[in-house]
Amino acid sequence: MRMTQLFVQTLRDDPADAEVPSHKLLVRAGYVRRVAPGIYTWLPLGLRVLNKIETIVREEMDAIGGQEMRFPALLPKEPYEATDRWEEYGPNLFRVKDRRGADMLLGPTHEEMFTLAVKDLYSSYKDLPARLYQIQTKYRDEARPRAGILRGREFIMKDSYSFDIDDAGLDAAYQAHREAYVRIFDRLGFEYVIVKADSGAMGGSASEEFLAVSPTGEDTFVRSAGGYAANVEAVTTPVPEAINFATFDAAVVVDTPGTPTIESLVEVLNASHARDDRPWEAKDTLKNVLVMLVHPDGRREPLAIGVPGDREVDEKRLETQVAPAEVDAFTEADFAANPVLVKGYIGPEVLGESRASGIRYLLDPRVVSGTVWATGANVQGKHVLNLTAGRDFEADGLIEAAEVRAGDPAPDGSGPLELARGIEMGHIFQLGRKYADRLGLQVLNENGSLTTVTMGSYGVGVSRAVGVIVESSHDDAGIVWPRSVSPFDVHLVVAGKAPEMFEAAERIVADLESAGLSVLFDDRPKVSPGVKFKDAELIGVPTIVVVGKNISDGIVEVKDRKSGDRRDVALSDATAEILGEVRG
Amino acid sequence: MRMTQLFVQTLRDDPADAEVPSHKLLVRAGYVRRVAPGIYTWLPLGLRVLNKIETIVREEMDAIGGQEMRFPALLPKEPYEATDRWEEYGPNLFRVKDRRGADMLLGPTHEEMFTLAVKDLYSSYKDLPARLYQIQTKYRDEARPRAGILRGREFIMKDSYSFDIDDAGLDAAYQAHREAYVRIFDRLGFEYVIVKADSGAMGGSASEEFLAVSPTGEDTFVRSAGGYAANVEAVTTPVPEAINFATFDAAVVVDTPGTPTIESLVEVLNASHARDDRPWEAKDTLKNVLVMLVHPDGRREPLAIGVPGDREVDEKRLETQVAPAEVDAFTEADFAANPVLVKGYIGPEVLGESRASGIRYLLDPRVVSGTVWATGANVQGKHVLNLTAGRDFEADGLIEAAEVRAGDPAPDGSGPLELARGIEMGHIFQLGRKYADRLGLQVLNENGSLTTVTMGSYGVGVSRAVGVIVESSHDDAGIVWPRSVSPFDVHLVVAGKAPEMFEAAERIVADLESAGLSVLFDDRPKVSPGVKFKDAELIGVPTIVVVGKNISDGIVEVKDRKSGDRRDVALSDATAEILGEVRG
Repeated sequence: MRMTQLFVQTLRDDPADAEVPSHKLLVRAGYVRRVAPGIYTWLPLGLRVLNKIETIVREEMDAIGGQEMRFPALLPKEPYEATDRWEEYGPNLFRVKDRRGADMLLGPTHEEMFTLAVKDLYSSYKDLPARLYQIQTKYRDEARPRAGILRGREFIMKDSYSFDIDDAGLDAAYQAHREAYVRIFDRLGFEYVIVKADSGAMGGSASEEFLAVSPTGEDTFVRSAGGYAANVEAVTTPVPEAINFATFDAAVVVDTPGTPTIESLVEVLNASHARDDRPWEAKDTLKNVLVMLVHPDGRREPLAIGVPGDREVDEKRLETQVAPAEVDAFTEADFAANPVLVKGYIGPEVLGESRASGIRYLLDPRVVSGTVWATGANVQGKHVLNLTAGRDFEADGLIEAAEVRAGDPAPDGSGPLELARGIEMGHIFQLGRKYADRLGLQVLNENGSLTTVTMGSYGVGVSRAVGVIVESSHDDAGIVWPRSVSPFDVHLVVAGKAPEMFEAAERIVADLESAGLSVLFDDRPKVSPGVKFKDAELIGVPTIVVVGKNISDGIVEVKDRKSGDRRDVALSDATAEILGEVRG
Repeated sequence: MRMTQLFVQTLRDDPADAEVPSHKLLVRAGYVRRVAPGIYTWLPLGLRVLNKIETIVREEMDAIGGQEMRFPALLPKEPYEATDRWEEYGPNLFRVKDRRGADMLLGPTHEEMFTLAVKDLYSSYKDLPARLYQIQTKYRDEARPRAGILRGREFIMKDSYSFDIDDAGLDAAYQAHREAYVRIFDRLGFEYVIVKADSGAMGGSASEEFLAVSPTGEDTFVRSAGGYAANVEAVTTPVPEAINFATFDAAVVVDTPGTPTIESLVEVLNASHARDDRPWEAKDTLKNVLVMLVHPDGRREPLAIGVPGDREVDEKRLETQVAPAEVDAFTEADFAANPVLVKGYIGPEVLGESRASGIRYLLDPRVVSGTVWATGANVQGKHVLNLTAGRDFEADGLIEAAEVRAGDPAPDGSGPLELARGIEMGHIFQLGRKYADRLGLQVLNENGSLTTVTMGSYGVGVSRAVGVIVESSHDDAGIVWPRSVSPFDVHLVVAGKAPEMFEAAERIVADLESAGLSVLFDDRPKVSPGVKFKDAELIGVPTIVVVGKNISDGIVEVKDRKSGDRRDVALSDATAEILGEVRG
């Protein structure tokens, strides 16, 4: 491929809407172009990378007995109604009405369709196990598409599904996928962790995520030195033992004027109601946070959450807990409609379905019976001290919504947690029988009776991988592709105008191509060497060959994009040297 | 691939909704499954064929310098508004509103997007020419999806676009695509014709279609012994010379009771108003047909069409002429609303924008000045004779809407036409500057001034090709794949239960696969040879190898699916023989 022909235009400036490196670089280097929010065109360079990733994914799926097929993206409503997902997806689903008024959707994931296909074709345990997959375009109407192709509204996924007669079969399919994913992500060449995941809206049991470790990631995960790793949404809080409160002081209401925040409360308490043992701290207070849940059917339900005052409510942990409902802010209008809630001074006394507000009240698991709190007295400028859980108040249940912090104990006792950020690249689920139940997928077992099939669901973000690889592999000058996915094996630059340079370059290109390498040949006659070098660094092919002035001495330069190392090679050895470099 | 593992289930019965052979066979043999009207899933066998076709198309597009990229399917409205196609596509467009209320569409074709991409990246004549293509999923909400994947609502097309600075460049791009399409369709192995096409709603100039010749085709085309070939929509009628009517008899109104049809009119005229020279024939009458046009904005406009009484109005030719309007029936209610129209006795006197009905009136080109007609007198039971075009009536214009019949003269004088049916598989258009004008695609020319780019648009029905190939290549027992697109090179059947058969079969499979062939191995242990043979014929792999009882004598059978020829081959020679057969 010649630069004079390639459909590309490198850009000097970052696109205005780009925040993360991969978004900036993929646009600037001419891999993708934005068409609408979260919707991108793959230019020739980008499509070449995408195809290489697809090939790696396909090879590893085929290696575990996966059979590739392809479902449509435009789907009828009925199967998704049978599993309630037509409603549960809420505004994240692109809905379409056809000319006859039939409701359809653009598939966000295909559990229903694969389940029905197996039901359609298979009827006996002898047909199982089956491992089916597709590499296909998916649609989600994200509220906040961001970071270019990292979170798009039209994107490419590999989704596979396993069908087994029993749990042992599902375990084997799950393990096979886990191992295939390890091989896929190893070949794609970025750092990743495998973390326990909350299976959330998918309704399954065991579930793990493959997260690309990246400071720009939207997902937070935790890990301990002892080997625990989990998506922050899946972290459970070790519940302390209950405390005998028989001898505890009675609760007492105190004046705390002008203390609508935890910080101001702690300051006033230390000034006016000092403790004997130590100063008041935020962790001694109980913060009651109100949110508004929006259910898939549009119904709005207020929810109160009690957490220790030194912790915030984590939005993503909360969303996972309340899914399929979404979380909206509790507005001034909502406060006005609930006059029993005194903003800044809300306490447990009025919270709960059977209390004055009637609002469901859920507590952080740390608020066990016998813990003692300073919290709102439901009167402007007043708090209550010594309020003891289990004695003075109770709630409607527990919720894992408080933020997880570095240093928190791992739930399995393997030590303190550290936090890091990642990008979800793969997800494996043991779905179990939920979809098969809902859609009636049963087969005859060995005894001739009908048995519900058990399923797994496994996804890889194929188009997202393009962005993730760039996030993990770039420098100030541009992209640095791993060889496994580079759009070309070699980028050959002619650094000058002399005909002998072009002649030598043409020969090298021909030799490399006949040896099976792909070459991006910068043959632009009127572009300066400096601009060509900059473009080569930006585009990021791992091996750059420069044919310049030294060609008169029979010398070309071979440069490693990643290390920046460059060395002179005799023209006569060039093909062999480059082949050696590319093939390792 | 082993039959015990392949996700397939052959069916004995034709699907209830299937009318054409390809639809029946592709479903029965397990290549596709229907999900919704016009929307299909590609099962593993079908996806393999689809991929082979894609590869052939890709190779030939790359060979003419095409660069592959990929646009999204979900697109913003604005570019399609700029070219009026948001409206012109009418109900054929799948429209989507996103969560913010933005109007989007599922792309039916991508002229707008490619035009904008070139505008985005290129600015100079030096960047041109460019030939860009994609192989991508497209959407059209067909009124009548039919024939399985032959006319679907979600389908795969290769669409390419050429961008040139001048007409000579466009001609070259057009010619290159024409030649590439010849190579593609030759490799796909079905009979096709290249016909002149009406460029219709695309608004271009030169345009040809590649039609697969097929009795089940929806398109009618004509050809003459002298080499003329055209889509029936593109056939033009040779206009006869005008006739001097100076001496013709005056028009006269006659009683023709009970003659609302041409047939009844001819009968009554011969009985009551016999001609001197010969009997009245249908071709002596002028039939005035009323239809209702429905414009993209929903506006309804009546239209009257005058054709010789021996010809019907051809619905598709009419639709092509009035596009982007659609054609609806002229109902009893419409007659009631236009009382000047006397159904069965309508004549030119009341037709035309300036006549009593005010309805636009267009004539067949054969109705030249001086032709004499028997036609309606606009009074119940009366017709007018000797009504002479150009003397007694005129119209608002001409229209090519009358049916084309075998024996009609070719417009280029190359002899009488014959009619045949075909399926549109490819279409090449010289679009010219319409899209570039509308979307502002200009580049600097050699003199430094802005010039509008000229474009071509070229399509191949990739998923449709799967159906077309089956239409052209099947027999009563099933599909007969050309080798170029067969899902496997060899179908190996074990016809029996003896372990030595399975052992021999495994060895042959291993040998063939290591020689680079793909083998579908029917290893089902409890299925009878008869069922296996039937499945092999149905699935249609061109070479069938049978390992049966003769294995004890070291003999296997090699069968040609197409001819049915079978011959015994020594096991020791089997691999070489089969390789020779497959590789020709």
